[in-house]
Amino acid sequence: MKTDIDFYFDFISPYGYLASTQLERIAIAHQRRIEWRPFLVGVTVMKIMGLKPMMQTPLKSDYVRLDKPRMASLLGVPLASPDVSRSNSVAAARAFYWIRDRDADAAMAFAKRMLHRAWVEGRDITPPEAVAEEASFVGIDAAQLRQALASQSLKDRLQREMDATIARGVFGSPFFIVDEQPIWGVDRLWMLEHWLRNGHWRRE
Amino acid sequence: MKTDIDFYFDFISPYGYLASTQLERIAIAHQRRIEWRPFLVGVTVMKIMGLKPMMQTPLKSDYVRLDKPRMASLLGVPLASPDVSRSNSVAAARAFYWIRDRDADAAMAFAKRMLHRAWVEGRDITPPEAVAEEASFVGIDAAQLRQALASQSLKDRLQREMDATIARGVFGSPFFIVDEQPIWGVDRLWMLEHWLRNGHWRRE
Repeated sequence: MKTDIDFYFDFISPYGYLASTQLERIAIAHQRRIEWRPFLVGVTVMKIMGLKPMMQTPLKSDYVRLDKPRMASLLGVPLASPDVSRSNSVAAARAFYWIRDRDADAAMAFAKRMLHRAWVEGRDITPPEAVAEEASFVGIDAAQLRQALASQSLKDRLQREMDATIARGVFGSPFFIVDEQPIWGVDRLWMLEHWLRNGHWRRE
Repeated sequence: MKTDIDFYFDFISPYGYLASTQLERIAIAHQRRIEWRPFLVGVTVMKIMGLKPMMQTPLKSDYVRLDKPRMASLLGVPLASPDVSRSNSVAAARAFYWIRDRDADAAMAFAKRMLHRAWVEGRDITPPEAVAEEASFVGIDAAQLRQALASQSLKDRLQREMDATIARGVFGSPFFIVDEQPIWGVDRLWMLEHWLRNGHWRRE
């Protein structure tokens, strides 16, 4: 009866990708399921929090440029450096939820493919064609998905997810919630593991 | 010939205090000295980065309120909750560098006392009287310090420290620099330890 780990991430977030490479190992070790929940971190950061994008923030942008490759190295995973300044993950996120409503396993496989495309292959994930291409590799009808991506109902579907995400206090990527405990950042995977191991926040 | 750990923190930053409780143990284990470097995080966050104060940022402020006590619990240290919304650490930081220029050990002891006053005793650290009182407990002449706190030369001294701090890319509290490696956040003490242990960023 263990609850799921809610894994909030943005497809265009390098730290979200980095977390995704570690999370399954952690979840399996502690017999938890992962609920993948892509969202648009630009909306929370800019519209809700009133901040600037990370890579347009003085001092922090320099730090992040230096930090991304060393974090990938620490985790032992590849990390490409696509130019995401003109990318957005709206179509990817909408596609995810459309697939999720039909097939949870396919949605997870799709999410992994999109993250791989962006952060291992270094390719753009913005255009609906890119999204449909990756979806087709996990057994989704690309034409049907392309049609759905143009629909108001799928826009509304993502909007409801965004509202729920913000209502739960999620603001950064990655962000984990397990047993109502919010945990922000790939640098806090050790806290997630502490909680899963102990179910408390006292020192071990 | 090991270099020091530069420890940047703001006296009014709870995460800076929390880091200070762990850093000596880590430094001793790896035979490093710590250079304590208080700065004014409000200047970097608001003036240089153009962001809002953490506790006035939607979503993040709620997260931090929940996170501070659990981080203290994880580290096994006390944490008071003073209202720091009207506090500032300008006098404390100026006093630190004035003492530091005269006696490095006394400056470190003063820094610990100020952090204890704020984050264990929950008392205000803003007024020059409070600063002078704590300084007197580490053998500093309170009257001399009070006079120095009113001087332009000490204002300039802190300004030079701030300029150097920003030039090194420091933006948050706590922030560590060791062997030119910048590390931000109490949640990254594991990275600091990784570096000190290995001298590289590869997976262990």
